[in-house]
Amino acid sequence: MARAWHLERRPNGMPVHDDFALKDIALPDLADGQIRVANRWLSVDPYMRGRMNDVKSYVPPFQLGEPMQGGAIGEVVESKADGFAKGDLVQHMEGWRDEAVVDTATGMAQKLPPLDVPAQAFLGQLGMPGLTGYFGLLEVAGAKKGDTVFVSAAAGAVGSTVVQVAKAKGMTVIGSAGGKEKCDWVRSLGADHMIDYKSGTPVVKALMEAAPDGIDVYFDNVGGDHLDAALAVANQHARFAICGMIDIYNTSEPTELRYLPRVIGARIRIQGFIVSDYLARAEEFYRDMGTMLQSGQLKREETVVEGLDNMPDAFLGLFSGKNMGKMLVKV
Amino acid sequence: MARAWHLERRPNGMPVHDDFALKDIALPDLADGQIRVANRWLSVDPYMRGRMNDVKSYVPPFQLGEPMQGGAIGEVVESKADGFAKGDLVQHMEGWRDEAVVDTATGMAQKLPPLDVPAQAFLGQLGMPGLTGYFGLLEVAGAKKGDTVFVSAAAGAVGSTVVQVAKAKGMTVIGSAGGKEKCDWVRSLGADHMIDYKSGTPVVKALMEAAPDGIDVYFDNVGGDHLDAALAVANQHARFAICGMIDIYNTSEPTELRYLPRVIGARIRIQGFIVSDYLARAEEFYRDMGTMLQSGQLKREETVVEGLDNMPDAFLGLFSGKNMGKMLVKV
Repeated sequence: MARAWHLERRPNGMPVHDDFALKDIALPDLADGQIRVANRWLSVDPYMRGRMNDVKSYVPPFQLGEPMQGGAIGEVVESKADGFAKGDLVQHMEGWRDEAVVDTATGMAQKLPPLDVPAQAFLGQLGMPGLTGYFGLLEVAGAKKGDTVFVSAAAGAVGSTVVQVAKAKGMTVIGSAGGKEKCDWVRSLGADHMIDYKSGTPVVKALMEAAPDGIDVYFDNVGGDHLDAALAVANQHARFAICGMIDIYNTSEPTELRYLPRVIGARIRIQGFIVSDYLARAEEFYRDMGTMLQSGQLKREETVVEGLDNMPDAFLGLFSGKNMGKMLVKV
Repeated sequence: MARAWHLERRPNGMPVHDDFALKDIALPDLADGQIRVANRWLSVDPYMRGRMNDVKSYVPPFQLGEPMQGGAIGEVVESKADGFAKGDLVQHMEGWRDEAVVDTATGMAQKLPPLDVPAQAFLGQLGMPGLTGYFGLLEVAGAKKGDTVFVSAAAGAVGSTVVQVAKAKGMTVIGSAGGKEKCDWVRSLGADHMIDYKSGTPVVKALMEAAPDGIDVYFDNVGGDHLDAALAVANQHARFAICGMIDIYNTSEPTELRYLPRVIGARIRIQGFIVSDYLARAEEFYRDMGTMLQSGQLKREETVVEGLDNMPDAFLGLFSGKNMGKMLVKV
């Protein structure tokens, strides 16, 4: 018997514990090409909130009454698949549970790349969030040496990668995070200026002070007042990579933008993107990030919630800013 | 003595007549390289509202107590400039007045291109608004054959150019305009579907019905609910060219966007632009538009207000939708 979190109810606004239910599920015997994986680390990510709604999107919604999915790192405990042996560590998408049977033929499981980092790093800085930050910054926003980059949720899994990649590539970085502890940590990653959005100062005012010469790039993880502030101070031909809008995942309130008309006068480009568009370039990402890791330019942080039973707490914590670095569940 | 409209007061919100004053001004004798121009046609454009505010923007603000500027077509009545003879028709930027002395050495006056259209067309479809629509559609939005294009303010000078260029290039066009007369006219230009935003139906609902297969391109002249509607129905990799936000030129209210998160899932690109970026490509524009004119693919409409005295009425009419096609003042 495995145990898996099921979607019991579609949330209205911020999810609550009763929206989730941990239930036993029977796993089948292995067919050819399949592996049985004992999960060690489970990922919770803001985008999962969208999958709880029954709307067409870039990832299909979770099904009501069915197990949820998500990124996971686990150990192969039984294999009927070529290239996978008992004891191998793999990453796959059958998270939100302690054990899974995964079809390797469809490419749904990969052995971890040969980089000298703890396994769970492949759910964070060296996984989907890292890939998001890396290509979002360098490709979607086209950020280059000398640019001034503003990053919201800079203490998060994606944001902290953006900060460090930007610094490694010779950019000036202004980050935003909630609270002194997070701001101090992001400063220790190399950020030139930090905005504490919980300090009471409006973000737009704080950003105008932190960026007297404007910003060239905005990496948006939150939307709302951060996006508006970025519009207010954007330089000519500024590029915004829109990665997430955590502020509005749980609300039906519209976003209010006072500085939107600056899109015209400053010729701003706002570009939304999805990390899966860059999966094919993962090798390039591992190569570059691997070099930065070895040179000590990359630091990693994670917030660990222990036990599958507490996974909804970990997930809900994303929306109240409980994580520094990647939020993980240790099974 | 010439007469020129001066900015008497900076408006707060929608301008009123007392913000403008028509005053006599003394014009100097001509220096070498200068021409004296009797203006025949004056342009009023939405962007001029921005110049009435004292804020740094892509065009400098009008100065308080000084004459205003803007596009104009006039006849040379005296010349001390090579290449300009008495009787020549020229376009220049010393509008909002009946007579002007213009420095030709700085390129501030051009003789009208040799196209078989009435002179005032060079303030509209074959002038700045036309150039805006043409490059905004084809370059900024990268619209191509087969795309479905949504155009707001489709009965305006810019919008009606976008509609016709899009149809000439094999696109499907959905336009929005206020009132049956305008909608009928834009339909006569070739628009496949028209939305009457004054009908009481929310724009987002009307657009969802008009574009069951979504839109690939949005050409934005108004912002606000039209922009939000476009976000709601945008297809994957849709491109928005943001040209104007007439809805908010006269208000300090923020724009409310409910569908902004779709930027991410649909990988939308929103790009602001300024027509002057494309002035260097005017010849290409005249060539292509000239061909379309000769083949009868381009129709032109103008709303004419008679007399310099009535110019503020013409300008204010832009914001209450009084114009069909280009709004002009005939001196």
